Amino acid sequence: MTADASVKPELRANVPDALTLAAELIRAPSVTPNSGGALELVARRLEASGYHVERLTFDSGGVPIPNIYARIGSGSPNLCFAGHVDVVPEGDPAQWQHGPFAGTVEDGKLYGRGAVDMKGAVAAFLSAALACGRPERGSLSFLITGDEEGPALDGTVKVVEWLKEKGEVIDHCVLGEPTNPGAMGDAFKVGRRGSLSGILTVKGVQGHVAYPHLADNPIPRLVKLVGELTAAPLDHGSDFFPPSNLEVVSIDVGNPVFNLIPAEATARFNVRFNDLYSLETLKSEIIRRLDGAGLTYDLAFQPGASQSFLTAPGPFVELVADAVEAETGRRPEASTSGGTSDARFIKDLCPVVEFGLVGQTMHKVDEATPVADLEVLTRIYSRIIARYFAAFA
Amino acid sequence: MTADASVKPELRANVPDALTLAAELIRAPSVTPNSGGALELVARRLEASGYHVERLTFDSGGVPIPNIYARIGSGSPNLCFAGHVDVVPEGDPAQWQHGPFAGTVEDGKLYGRGAVDMKGAVAAFLSAALACGRPERGSLSFLITGDEEGPALDGTVKVVEWLKEKGEVIDHCVLGEPTNPGAMGDAFKVGRRGSLSGILTVKGVQGHVAYPHLADNPIPRLVKLVGELTAAPLDHGSDFFPPSNLEVVSIDVGNPVFNLIPAEATARFNVRFNDLYSLETLKSEIIRRLDGAGLTYDLAFQPGASQSFLTAPGPFVELVADAVEAETGRRPEASTSGGTSDARFIKDLCPVVEFGLVGQTMHKVDEATPVADLEVLTRIYSRIIARYFAAFA
Ligand SMILES: [Zn+2]
Ligand SMILES: [Zn+2]
Repeated sequence: MTADASVKPELRANVPDALTLAAELIRAPSVTPNSGGALELVARRLEASGYHVERLTFDSGGVPIPNIYARIGSGSPNLCFAGHVDVVPEGDPAQWQHGPFAGTVEDGKLYGRGAVDMKGAVAAFLSAALACGRPERGSLSFLITGDEEGPALDGTVKVVEWLKEKGEVIDHCVLGEPTNPGAMGDAFKVGRRGSLSGILTVKGVQGHVAYPHLADNPIPRLVKLVGELTAAPLDHGSDFFPPSNLEVVSIDVGNPVFNLIPAEATARFNVRFNDLYSLETLKSEIIRRLDGAGLTYDLAFQPGASQSFLTAPGPFVELVADAVEAETGRRPEASTSGGTSDARFIKDLCPVVEFGLVGQTMHKVDEATPVADLEVLTRIYSRIIARYFAAFA
Repeated sequence: MTADASVKPELRANVPDALTLAAELIRAPSVTPNSGGALELVARRLEASGYHVERLTFDSGGVPIPNIYARIGSGSPNLCFAGHVDVVPEGDPAQWQHGPFAGTVEDGKLYGRGAVDMKGAVAAFLSAALACGRPERGSLSFLITGDEEGPALDGTVKVVEWLKEKGEVIDHCVLGEPTNPGAMGDAFKVGRRGSLSGILTVKGVQGHVAYPHLADNPIPRLVKLVGELTAAPLDHGSDFFPPSNLEVVSIDVGNPVFNLIPAEATARFNVRFNDLYSLETLKSEIIRRLDGAGLTYDLAFQPGASQSFLTAPGPFVELVADAVEAETGRRPEASTSGGTSDARFIKDLCPVVEFGLVGQTMHKVDEATPVADLEVLTRIYSRIIARYFAAFA
């Protein structure tokens, strides 16, 4: 463990602690696309502490989605905390031991939808930032969205566009997604794999099974193409990433009877891919494999694909790992596994790392975080803020 | 062409011709399971000519389905004509140039649903049989069903059971399905392939595509199993049959999203098989192929499977071919191709051959038969009746 007496979290008087803030956010029910007042709570806390808050509403999907970008201080370096206050649906409330939007504390745990993903982390960074106040040199900022768990069309992606248009510079970013598989200090994320989805269609000629020469069954050809697509691993992983992986997630024909040869068959697939591929080289590899079967097919890549990205090793990544180690006694693994996150948009602005709570109960019934984890996370964020301005300002 | 002056069709006075009878039947709309009065028309014509008619109604499917078994004469040999008066739906009547149930004659063709399949053939045999009257020795009989085009649960299969229980002997049977692909005299059927359907299911473990090690995708295994099932032909045909053929008619997963690995995948298949397999040896071969993949799967063979059958070459088959050749100038091909028919039930009673009209417009809009074909078919059936009693009585 690194002792670091220079960091004094919660320096300022009257700064609410993370537990208070997290419980307050949980009680504002903000299942995507509803804001439930959660984002406004964050905005007002920040305004009250001297932040300039931009309220950014986008509604390309037909529902207005609130987002905020808030900043305190002037000039570089600008350290941004990114996160979301929308949550996945609670499911059947009767399954919950504790009300999903009650923010109950029991046996040292804070219960509620979003406790882990990620109202808890928003609260922890908010507490740490409010305690820090206005940096002597440089800026602290918040990019908080209401559209991460939903279609994510009107959330971080739009705020990043807006920031680019404004010429707003963010130098480094910490995203608060739950990154620890089992306990605080397990891991932080320095990259994410890309994601590409496609629909593969093979056409044939419908006909009666008793007269196969008058029909042309597309299914054997689709099966052959799927076989080619999945025959060999895409790669065996890279220095920083696990292997790329293609999953065929559905095959559908929809023929309800046994005596008809169908006219069309469709397969849907998704690839999670590492830094050995760009979107373009991955698409080429998929087409190369399919063409290897020597068959005619239709292929439609889906919108919303993302590149893989990696925040290169260096002082910022080390600073975050140091802060985690200082508070947990463990050097976190620099991970690039798991699903996508809003880091895929932020990486176009600046280096981004992700560190948050323990993900075990996220999206589940009785989502909860130990209060102690909230406190550890707040101290880690405080160390990151303090060291960041010490090192980069 | 064989001249045969001894055959004199329509010997008796006041016997309605096939065109009259067929038009009358078409005007009785009998889309399965509706009788539309069509069967009763046949029954009354037969009763008026001295036939003893048994009206046999079965309703295992919840709808009462009428059938008749009618007989004239005494003792052996009993030559039976089998057929159906139910028809497939007319579809959109606006697509028809001629009313589907109008029985219009235009440009030498009789139009209407069932003209070819198979009210025309029922009318032709009826005309021929009424002209023949009561055989001097032996019996003439009719097995006419109202459930061939539907589920076929309460049609010929039930009448055959009833005949067996009664100890009623039928010595030979002619079934009136359309057997000529292009022109009268092309082909008659001396057998049919069997049919077996199955559902193949592979189970897995659902999970997120970003964490494939926590899930177990059933699709690659199903694809492998389907590959094993279809890798090699089942056979290359036999002396009397075309090759057996397996078609995978559907693969379904029903996963609407790209980020989930599904829990289950299903394939449906149908086999049309020849006399190189029994149902049991075919099932064994399917299981042997699937087991070859070394994977776990569920397999459910569907009810309603049928064996293949062949009416062996011999005097009865020759008699039918001779009659066709005598009237058309061409020796018909002894075929075993195409779908199943009610012959699959009748073959348990006696040798059965099938000969009827030209199938081109069956089940289509503006189904029609040339009036000349109806006349040729009536003469062929008359020859079959006359020669049958000359040869077998
Ligand atoms: Zn999240
Ligand atoms: Zn038919």
